Amino acid sequence: MQVVVIGANACGAKAACRVKRLNPKVEVILIDKDDLISYGACGIPYFVSGDVPYENALRETSYHVVRDEKFFRNAKGLTVLTKTLAEEIDRKRKTVRVRYLDSGKIEEIPYDKLVIATGSKPRILNLPGIDLEGVYTISNLHKAIEIKERIARGQVEKPLVIGAGLIGLEMTEAFADLWGLPVTLLEYFPQVLPKNLDPFTARIVENHLKEKGINLVLNARIKEIVGKEGRVIGVKTEREFYPADLVLMAVGVEPNTELAKKAGLLVSPLTGGIMVNERLQTSDPDIYAGGDCIEVTHLITGKKVVMPMGSLANRQGRVIGTNIAGGVATFKGTVGAFIMKCFDLSVGGAGLTLSQAKAEGFFASYALNNQTERSHFYPGAEYAYYALIFDKKTTRILGFQAIGPFTDGTLARIHAISSILPHKPLVEDLINLELAYAPPFNSALDPIHDTAHVADNILRGLFEPMEWEEVLRRLKEGDPNSYIIDLRHPKEAEYLVKNFSNVKPILYQEFRYHLDKIPKDKDIILICNSSRRAYEVARLLKAEGFERVYVPLGGISFPRKWGELVK
Amino acid sequence: MQVVVIGANACGAKAACRVKRLNPKVEVILIDKDDLISYGACGIPYFVSGDVPYENALRETSYHVVRDEKFFRNAKGLTVLTKTLAEEIDRKRKTVRVRYLDSGKIEEIPYDKLVIATGSKPRILNLPGIDLEGVYTISNLHKAIEIKERIARGQVEKPLVIGAGLIGLEMTEAFADLWGLPVTLLEYFPQVLPKNLDPFTARIVENHLKEKGINLVLNARIKEIVGKEGRVIGVKTEREFYPADLVLMAVGVEPNTELAKKAGLLVSPLTGGIMVNERLQTSDPDIYAGGDCIEVTHLITGKKVVMPMGSLANRQGRVIGTNIAGGVATFKGTVGAFIMKCFDLSVGGAGLTLSQAKAEGFFASYALNNQTERSHFYPGAEYAYYALIFDKKTTRILGFQAIGPFTDGTLARIHAISSILPHKPLVEDLINLELAYAPPFNSALDPIHDTAHVADNILRGLFEPMEWEEVLRRLKEGDPNSYIIDLRHPKEAEYLVKNFSNVKPILYQEFRYHLDKIPKDKDIILICNSSRRAYEVARLLKAEGFERVYVPLGGISFPRKWGELVK
Repeated sequence: MQVVVIGANACGAKAACRVKRLNPKVEVILIDKDDLISYGACGIPYFVSGDVPYENALRETSYHVVRDEKFFRNAKGLTVLTKTLAEEIDRKRKTVRVRYLDSGKIEEIPYDKLVIATGSKPRILNLPGIDLEGVYTISNLHKAIEIKERIARGQVEKPLVIGAGLIGLEMTEAFADLWGLPVTLLEYFPQVLPKNLDPFTARIVENHLKEKGINLVLNARIKEIVGKEGRVIGVKTEREFYPADLVLMAVGVEPNTELAKKAGLLVSPLTGGIMVNERLQTSDPDIYAGGDCIEVTHLITGKKVVMPMGSLANRQGRVIGTNIAGGVATFKGTVGAFIMKCFDLSVGGAGLTLSQAKAEGFFASYALNNQTERSHFYPGAEYAYYALIFDKKTTRILGFQAIGPFTDGTLARIHAISSILPHKPLVEDLINLELAYAPPFNSALDPIHDTAHVADNILRGLFEPMEWEEVLRRLKEGDPNSYIIDLRHPKEAEYLVKNFSNVKPILYQEFRYHLDKIPKDKDIILICNSSRRAYEVARLLKAEGFERVYVPLGGISFPRKWGELVK
Repeated sequence: MQVVVIGANACGAKAACRVKRLNPKVEVILIDKDDLISYGACGIPYFVSGDVPYENALRETSYHVVRDEKFFRNAKGLTVLTKTLAEEIDRKRKTVRVRYLDSGKIEEIPYDKLVIATGSKPRILNLPGIDLEGVYTISNLHKAIEIKERIARGQVEKPLVIGAGLIGLEMTEAFADLWGLPVTLLEYFPQVLPKNLDPFTARIVENHLKEKGINLVLNARIKEIVGKEGRVIGVKTEREFYPADLVLMAVGVEPNTELAKKAGLLVSPLTGGIMVNERLQTSDPDIYAGGDCIEVTHLITGKKVVMPMGSLANRQGRVIGTNIAGGVATFKGTVGAFIMKCFDLSVGGAGLTLSQAKAEGFFASYALNNQTERSHFYPGAEYAYYALIFDKKTTRILGFQAIGPFTDGTLARIHAISSILPHKPLVEDLINLELAYAPPFNSALDPIHDTAHVADNILRGLFEPMEWEEVLRRLKEGDPNSYIIDLRHPKEAEYLVKNFSNVKPILYQEFRYHLDKIPKDKDIILICNSSRRAYEVARLLKAEGFERVYVPLGGISFPRKWGELVK
């Protein structure tokens, strides 16, 4: 049997090696148009930043051998053809026509089983000036090396990043943190990470970026990339001109499906991805596909999506390898779990955002929670911020978002949530989740539990949540129909009481002795740090016959982390 | 309605507050024989160590108010009776007879619903000298304060801990790490954490304890606690005398069930815990019980167990509160998830150990994996060690153990595993787990994936594992029928090759060119760091007709972490 694999990164390299391991007698030919193969593409921002000192570190095994052609040949027993472009698949004759890019020679390579792992390509905005020198996308490791060399030579003083998605943010940090460059970051949408977060969490990231000196511009409508003598000098939006000597476009990627289309394989017009079954066979059962070029099932919506993630690509490579070698393995779909480092923060999530959930027709709502990662009495415990998206009719969990310090605490919560999301858990199932506890790691009730408790209390009608946008409006307008009570220690309450006419201080632990002070004809809005005290007081007021009692979601910790209500 | 709650710590305090929140009009009376209530008992070792500077820190809310009687009365609206002993329950008349410990006065308190949250008491070994001054158990916060004061006054120079379970290890660290005391740790079993780990992981902890200067004695058969003039001066085992001026006994806890037994409630003779249904009602439906005093269902075996964990107690308190207030909540059982800090390590697990699984009749086997927590190219990535216990017939996951540096990386893996264990996952389900990935946090394939891959490869018969005990024996005996190949870089292989006559070096990535060197009449044992390279070479050798090829589980990283095969 002869197996041909097109694409020698995450999915392709994994599939090729897995086939060979399962059946060392199979001839496996691994083809790539590049000469740098099997590099950790997700590591590129850390290479550009300098955290990873040289490019080969991204290509090394854990035992420090570079995964080059020779390695794949000698260690793995594969035939590796680099700088070799797969131009066409002849499915009847079962051959791939390749062009050796150095010599220009063309050859037909026969296959019994074929793997298409052609990955994705960066999306390019249709803008004037896109071809100017100094305008980049991160399409491969060569581009990253070029950018890093330009910075190292001191040729970059004003980098500008277009797109505040995962890669855009990682590259922003790479420019700013290690090289100390003043980065401008332009985002079309009114928030960062629009595919991953909702405004209530995204604003925490935005405020952190500002604290780190990033010139973040949301709602940016770019008109033109401006050049002079063929080199980029800046970017013009509808409103302003931003000088720049390097522009990195990070506005998403598209599946690389030309080869598959030309071969007549089914490619979805909706998602743009190659259509595969659960065993990752394309519409031609002798041809498998995996990685960024395929569409997969979103396990929350049941719909097809493209989800270009290195972790999925690697898992898909193993599935393909097993199936080709005669075993049975399947890839059921994705819940879109992600994690990222953003300066001093870790940011993660899984499932749908609130806006995605609403767009999908769910009766979606959300709960917020703010809690120390470790037991609050444990030294160095820092606050983290959590959001849970759920369906109000079925109580089903639809998504989860977490932002904390740069520890593995966020990973821990995302790992738990992404592990159970395929089981379609309800809010109650999160409450019943068993999560290990010791004070150096968390509280007796993990942040996942307490976030689920907030959702549960909303679902049971135990309190009436109010969004902070609304509270902020009433504060700033001095709304006379709102009686806003700050339940915190007088020192903490001082700022709100002094600056907003409709805020009164009543200490939480003495509240029940001041019920006579509370007006019955106003909206009562209860403020504390995380909303735990506010919830408790709301229960008391309800029992005492007060009807219009509101608890701002997540407590004042959230707007403060957005940069609001801070002295 | 009047609700009486006996026991004002984790479960009891939670149940009382939850009832009151759900229905503020209910009268809730919270009774405890102690004056210090609602403290984070799991935080005691960190208080003794000094990490938590004063005892009230353990009793504070996250907003720094001490949870004393006044707090529960004013903030929560409960009636709190401290220093009040519940002596007897009269189920017919629905009253609890209490004794006020200060005045000696006795009173009958009526209840509509009663909660028994009497917790556990430390197990006391039946040894001569147990009553000597200076012999302690950690039965409550008072004892911890006493110990800490003795240390602070310089009255403790030679502490000795009996029992290397979770609390024994935490207290050992508290004595040694912050106070710099030379601790002797005696354990009856041949390993530390005998309820939580198997020898292959426990030995990592044992070696770490030795590196930290702990005098760890396994297989200790204690004969007597020796005193002089009423004060402890040491501990005598069958073999030796260990001087000590403070002895801490941490040999487990027992459910506190006397009150329940006296009231005629069903208490299991097998587990010793109060029997409850999923809504946590005892055999009297008006009496609920939760926390360390009850038995619960182990979700792997289906059997009843006592599982005294603060996290479960808190969750059970909420369930009881909901049910008493007229809602419906259940507690289904436990998978025994735990996490702990042990000096520079984090140690965690869930499910059964290998020996527990075998004792339960499972056809149990295990896989080991060693992997950097972060991407291996990411700066500061440290190794962690993983074990997966599975059933060879059904491929069901039975347990998981993880040891890593003191980050939240171990928590992340235990959170994922404990979250899905109740769903009875198979090895394949772990392979298919979606786990978020970015290089600062993990590899594209998370350690959970790669550990499951090892198990999968064993189940599919892709390689023949060998236990390190057996490999070590063959190395040390110079077994001539074993041909042991070190596949690592020549520098790394040097130590084994020089010191053991039956070890030959053949570099992994050139292995396929040296097949003629390999004898067909010997056991071929393949060594590399983590067993990844060994597995690959084993596949090649099998395909070339070699039959007796063995891969030591987890690679040489494991015995080296045990302190073996280290220069």
